[in-house]
Amino acid sequence: MVKDWSEWYQEIIQKAGLAEHSPVRGCMTIKPYGWAIWELMRDRLDAAFKATGHQNAYFPLFIPLSFLAKEAQHVEGFAQECAVVTHYRIKTDPETRAVTPDPEAELEEPLVVRPTSETIIWSTFREWIQSYRDLPLLINQWANVVRWEKRPRLFLRTTEFLWQEGHTAHATAEEALEEARRMLDIYAEFAEQVLAIPVIKGRKTPSERFAGAVETFTIETLLVDGKALQAGTSHFLGQNFAKAFDVKYLTAENKLEYVWATSWGVSTRLIGALILSHGDEKGLILPPQVAPIQVVIIPVWKSTEEQTQTTQKAHELARKLTDLGVRVKVDTDPHHRPGWKYNEWELRGVPVRMVVGPRDLAAATVEVAFRHNGEKRSVSEGEALAEIKKWLDTIQRTLYARAKARIEHQTHWVEDYARMREILEESGGFVVAHWDGTAETEAAIKAETGATIRCIPLDWKEEPGKCIYTGRPSAGRVLFAKAY
Amino acid sequence: MVKDWSEWYQEIIQKAGLAEHSPVRGCMTIKPYGWAIWELMRDRLDAAFKATGHQNAYFPLFIPLSFLAKEAQHVEGFAQECAVVTHYRIKTDPETRAVTPDPEAELEEPLVVRPTSETIIWSTFREWIQSYRDLPLLINQWANVVRWEKRPRLFLRTTEFLWQEGHTAHATAEEALEEARRMLDIYAEFAEQVLAIPVIKGRKTPSERFAGAVETFTIETLLVDGKALQAGTSHFLGQNFAKAFDVKYLTAENKLEYVWATSWGVSTRLIGALILSHGDEKGLILPPQVAPIQVVIIPVWKSTEEQTQTTQKAHELARKLTDLGVRVKVDTDPHHRPGWKYNEWELRGVPVRMVVGPRDLAAATVEVAFRHNGEKRSVSEGEALAEIKKWLDTIQRTLYARAKARIEHQTHWVEDYARMREILEESGGFVVAHWDGTAETEAAIKAETGATIRCIPLDWKEEPGKCIYTGRPSAGRVLFAKAY
Repeated sequence: MVKDWSEWYQEIIQKAGLAEHSPVRGCMTIKPYGWAIWELMRDRLDAAFKATGHQNAYFPLFIPLSFLAKEAQHVEGFAQECAVVTHYRIKTDPETRAVTPDPEAELEEPLVVRPTSETIIWSTFREWIQSYRDLPLLINQWANVVRWEKRPRLFLRTTEFLWQEGHTAHATAEEALEEARRMLDIYAEFAEQVLAIPVIKGRKTPSERFAGAVETFTIETLLVDGKALQAGTSHFLGQNFAKAFDVKYLTAENKLEYVWATSWGVSTRLIGALILSHGDEKGLILPPQVAPIQVVIIPVWKSTEEQTQTTQKAHELARKLTDLGVRVKVDTDPHHRPGWKYNEWELRGVPVRMVVGPRDLAAATVEVAFRHNGEKRSVSEGEALAEIKKWLDTIQRTLYARAKARIEHQTHWVEDYARMREILEESGGFVVAHWDGTAETEAAIKAETGATIRCIPLDWKEEPGKCIYTGRPSAGRVLFAKAY
Repeated sequence: MVKDWSEWYQEIIQKAGLAEHSPVRGCMTIKPYGWAIWELMRDRLDAAFKATGHQNAYFPLFIPLSFLAKEAQHVEGFAQECAVVTHYRIKTDPETRAVTPDPEAELEEPLVVRPTSETIIWSTFREWIQSYRDLPLLINQWANVVRWEKRPRLFLRTTEFLWQEGHTAHATAEEALEEARRMLDIYAEFAEQVLAIPVIKGRKTPSERFAGAVETFTIETLLVDGKALQAGTSHFLGQNFAKAFDVKYLTAENKLEYVWATSWGVSTRLIGALILSHGDEKGLILPPQVAPIQVVIIPVWKSTEEQTQTTQKAHELARKLTDLGVRVKVDTDPHHRPGWKYNEWELRGVPVRMVVGPRDLAAATVEVAFRHNGEKRSVSEGEALAEIKKWLDTIQRTLYARAKARIEHQTHWVEDYARMREILEESGGFVVAHWDGTAETEAAIKAETGATIRCIPLDWKEEPGKCIYTGRPSAGRVLFAKAY
């Protein structure tokens, strides 16, 4: 059993070669294995966006300060974490060789490195939207963004991170709301079916909303350490940005109206969620759908002759699996022993290991081991090929079911504030409790326990009760937790 | 015939919806149609990199000033065009509401937005490389970079652009040189076979080398307007960055040696090259391999009944073509007439148009038109489906052959400096001439004609002659041109 998940997290990310802290404080370097996971995530999401009519585009990295300032809540929300470009040239002191920003190359208007792109995009949408025929406008962008982070944590909180941000414009509030909900559903489906991460769909309280949003929808999950994670958000922006950037359209009735907006995003933080949803004391456990290597094949040998034969056999098997659409790696490294390799690939979370030893050659067998439950058995090569897809599918569903059971176990329906504090201090987890609906109570609970309202679940049932903190009337339960 | 290609270029990019100038000076917005082309390019290149053993990773957007300064030539080469981040917070004046960088949040060490990533990557490679077993290290990154641009031009020269940058480390100079050449070959093959852009592979003269490189290889092409374009470069960096960042490896003989490096990149400027290689007075002409839409199907009708029938037929045909792996769009827009649509899709460079009219229904025919030569004919649907792949392939090869012939026509073997100046002033194009090999002559010719030595071609033949400028002995000819 893992005792300190925080330590485990750092260690596994380093040992599995997923990412590392860069020399630039708060910024991470994503290493090849981590990047390969991100590519798989990106491709799946991108396909889902395109299937629902969205198009990719690309907007500038920089945002003029004055743009950011146009939506009052927005600038207030991001002011504390903006990287600001003030110069466009550097110079080397001819004597000291010291390099500094060139004072003669100061920008008239400083530029902010985008923390999110609503402002630059809505200044552009103004030109793209004239009439109702231009709507809906469904745009997505894959990009890097920067939000200065005081307490960085690999993947979960980094100053620079990679994400996609969808930005859409609609003729009516209803359509925009529908879009915001549609994208939330796509995120939830992606999290559950591709990442095997169970999520709860909900809406944020006003104090937890995105800066500039009328309504923020979220998918929330709970990690192995009992902390909650906001895994993706989808915002209904009302007409806030349309008004800030004066984006109107001509209706079919020839009237000028402000358009309605949404934005939505998920980021590389999902890799952090993945790690902390499925790992164990041996390391990562990757759901097959986002495992860069789904099957690792390890030939084992004693003699050089056996080495040649088992290696050849391993490559043959790899080719057959590749033909079935399975992502395979053959580990022929002569510098490490089989036992070392087993540990290494377990650490890296590869779902299935196949070992080809000398005795498997004549028998046409292979030893199959599953990462998620440690099971091991010898099967015929034919069976391995016939069953592999089913195995991967079963592993995927098992990981989801396991995470689901864990989260249910970590979810507490609580009536009593003392008990709530106890849970939050000891085991963490979701606390499902009554709340009187006021920001004051929300703030008081946060100050005393460190827990925030993660969301008001969308499947929320009207259930009269008493607020766990004030005892005042409550219309239903909300989800509290300490969060990343 | 197009008279002013420069004007044509701006206009086509705007009308075809490829890109536009953003509100941030020098930065472009890549619109969905332009982005779709970039995605196709990216996926092809990415596959070629992976097939040659490279892995993707991601390094920080920011580079500490002191890192950039470590390689003397490097910092000198990029100093004039660096965006510098000096603050990490902004503040709003409570009275005037003016937003400014927060003077209390000034960075101790300013950060440069990466103009290229050698320095940040080599500071990381130092940790990744210990022994010969870690080599070669073959890394690629897809990223945005910023080089402050005084005379921006969409795609060809923008302050922010997207690119890939490969960075590799090797045990020997020979291996690094081989890698630099291998990547040049991959770029050349990509340009010629995927973009249908003929290129000349060569090496840069010392004065045109990448800042920090020992040798810069380049692929050069010539655009319709007679200007040359550097379409991709691959650098042999020697041990310059290894020494600047102290990256050594333990050899098999247990000795510590500096590693050898390459870097190589192509960028969104290739979209500019594509536009200016194949366009004509009607607009873009896209090679099928990078055409987001390879076939546009336009149903035409008079009555509502015909509209239903031809639209249905168009969708049927689209499904069949999609099943063959063809990228298809059906244009059912009721607001525009067929003639308008023909012009529109010709402008956007779609290789093949298929029109389904009422008379085609019973006859099971379709009218096919080719963008690149304007040919039009009625064929059976069966023939269209049987031939489409061949047609696209023929178009691809024809565009290449046509560009090749054009460039040959624009290439002038010249012995006389007066003639060289005349050509460069009037028609532009490549001037193949003798050069005495000195930087002085190179600089003098550049000052007088605006032309630079694009490259010393790799298939360069030793051919004694006299320098076109000084009359001094020359060992062979080089390629001069005015360039973007």
